Amino acid sequence: MQSGEDKLIARFFKPLAAAEGALSLTDDAAFFSPPDGHEVVLKTDAIVAGVHFLPDDPPESIARKALRVNLSDLSAKGAKPAGCLMTLALPDGIAESWLEGFAAGLKSDCEEYACPLYGGDTVRTPGPVSISIFAFGTLPRGGMVRRAGAKSGHRIFVTGTIGDASLGLKLLREPARKAAWGLTDADAKFLIDRYRLPRPRVALAAALRNCASAAMDVSDGLLGDLGKLCDLSKVSARIEATALPLSSGARQALRCEPTLIEPIATGGDDYEILCAIAPERVPVFRQAAEAAGVPVTDIGEVTAGEEPPLLIAADGATLSFARTSYSHF
Amino acid sequence: MQSGEDKLIARFFKPLAAAEGALSLTDDAAFFSPPDGHEVVLKTDAIVAGVHFLPDDPPESIARKALRVNLSDLSAKGAKPAGCLMTLALPDGIAESWLEGFAAGLKSDCEEYACPLYGGDTVRTPGPVSISIFAFGTLPRGGMVRRAGAKSGHRIFVTGTIGDASLGLKLLREPARKAAWGLTDADAKFLIDRYRLPRPRVALAAALRNCASAAMDVSDGLLGDLGKLCDLSKVSARIEATALPLSSGARQALRCEPTLIEPIATGGDDYEILCAIAPERVPVFRQAAEAAGVPVTDIGEVTAGEEPPLLIAADGATLSFARTSYSHF
Repeated sequence: MQSGEDKLIARFFKPLAAAEGALSLTDDAAFFSPPDGHEVVLKTDAIVAGVHFLPDDPPESIARKALRVNLSDLSAKGAKPAGCLMTLALPDGIAESWLEGFAAGLKSDCEEYACPLYGGDTVRTPGPVSISIFAFGTLPRGGMVRRAGAKSGHRIFVTGTIGDASLGLKLLREPARKAAWGLTDADAKFLIDRYRLPRPRVALAAALRNCASAAMDVSDGLLGDLGKLCDLSKVSARIEATALPLSSGARQALRCEPTLIEPIATGGDDYEILCAIAPERVPVFRQAAEAAGVPVTDIGEVTAGEEPPLLIAADGATLSFARTSYSHF
Repeated sequence: MQSGEDKLIARFFKPLAAAEGALSLTDDAAFFSPPDGHEVVLKTDAIVAGVHFLPDDPPESIARKALRVNLSDLSAKGAKPAGCLMTLALPDGIAESWLEGFAAGLKSDCEEYACPLYGGDTVRTPGPVSISIFAFGTLPRGGMVRRAGAKSGHRIFVTGTIGDASLGLKLLREPARKAAWGLTDADAKFLIDRYRLPRPRVALAAALRNCASAAMDVSDGLLGDLGKLCDLSKVSARIEATALPLSSGARQALRCEPTLIEPIATGGDDYEILCAIAPERVPVFRQAAEAAGVPVTDIGEVTAGEEPPLLIAADGATLSFARTSYSHF
């Protein structure tokens, strides 16, 4: 009595449904209980071929990106991933090898992040491949780190390095830039990989809950995302261009083409965490981040006022750009 | 600092985010705590223009259908709706009036079913409009009604009437059938409305938890869905064609064209609940359903064996069809 859809699920996705409440994806719904004293944090983010990833990106990395962009949000909120559900819209004639790669990539990440699949829906679409993941996590009740909460005088930190994915996408679209920017093979590969495969900062969740007055992940562009955090916190900010943590590839590209500071600061797809830390919590935060193995960099200060955050160049001038982050609309 | 996407969310979807944990959709994620002793039931289902609804269906009813197909599953599992998240993929140039209608329809249902919006993602797509809803509900821990659990001798019940949506879709595609089937205006309108707007049986959730040995909603077709329930319960079933509850329009159409028993029994989109009830629980179940205002009909019996369920005609013959339910793949 199995339909084609049931067979597809049983073959490709049942192996990802490691949780008891997922019922091996054989039922209409799944069940989940957060640990006592904990609440559930809920997030959904979708990616569409030709919009959020390139149609010929490897299916493994497409699946992993679809999950990881959600885990990045959960981590920024201080939550520990607990599970996910997925809507997968597939055009006619999708190759079986594509599905195999996709399922293998997702399985590897469901395991790595202890975030099993609890359910999903697989539908035909006359449009491009699109993947909507709903991810949920848990944290002690009342503990979610908000965008609102930053106060004048708090330090602004960001994890990892900024701008890599944005430069990686430029390299994918115009491979000649590699030579123009004088990049080594390794640096070019690193930047492209940073576009294809976010590294959600799951290890930082507890440190954020303990130390951050506000936090969010950087997905649409550092400067624009900082603006959103400041908006909700009713503050402004001042960050230093020279303080932005850059990878060796991004540093090299920026040296060749100084206007790249714009895509670095506004391009997005970083999936690093931006947070505000009260000065007295900075030492504890630095220590916790180090213990978690997550590099963090102080890039500036929360200031009073409600104007958009300022990005200050080495010479003290304010850098301003046509737009500060990516928007679909 | 608001992007176009932020403005769209603030204008159209923030009014739907009535829960505290939704934070007015201004944060990266939301939070939710099930009541003490309860667990969360998780479900996601998507609908795509041209596949699950007609592109010129009213946007209000598209939004409501997208939510209701999920609430139907939650209800069949015995859960009470608690909230939802949505991924909305929109092609370029979607009319503002379409979005207004869509948001108004969704708001009306979020309120009617006490199922506020907790978050979402709005993305551009080169494909058709598609809507993926993730809905969650709660029920006492361990209380989820499964597909597995039906036993030989249990009675099979279905709510409401069966086949209306499938006939309604035929009417939308070939309006001449209205005359061929000798339908009144009211009957034709009723069938079409049943296709466009499911009525999830939320009022039956508690009765199912108390009485049903197995349950699921009928979305892909009665006979095929019964087969899935039997498969997981490792039983078979025998249902009577003459016992199927039909609306006056479906009854009239079937009289004119007896082969319509096939789309009625296998066409799907019913969003009624199919369940198995141990004989000694039947009186309690009937009483609880009546108290909940949900009509229920005994359509047959669970039998031993593992062969596909049988649909028996008035003359005792077994009706068999090329396929027993809808599948995308």
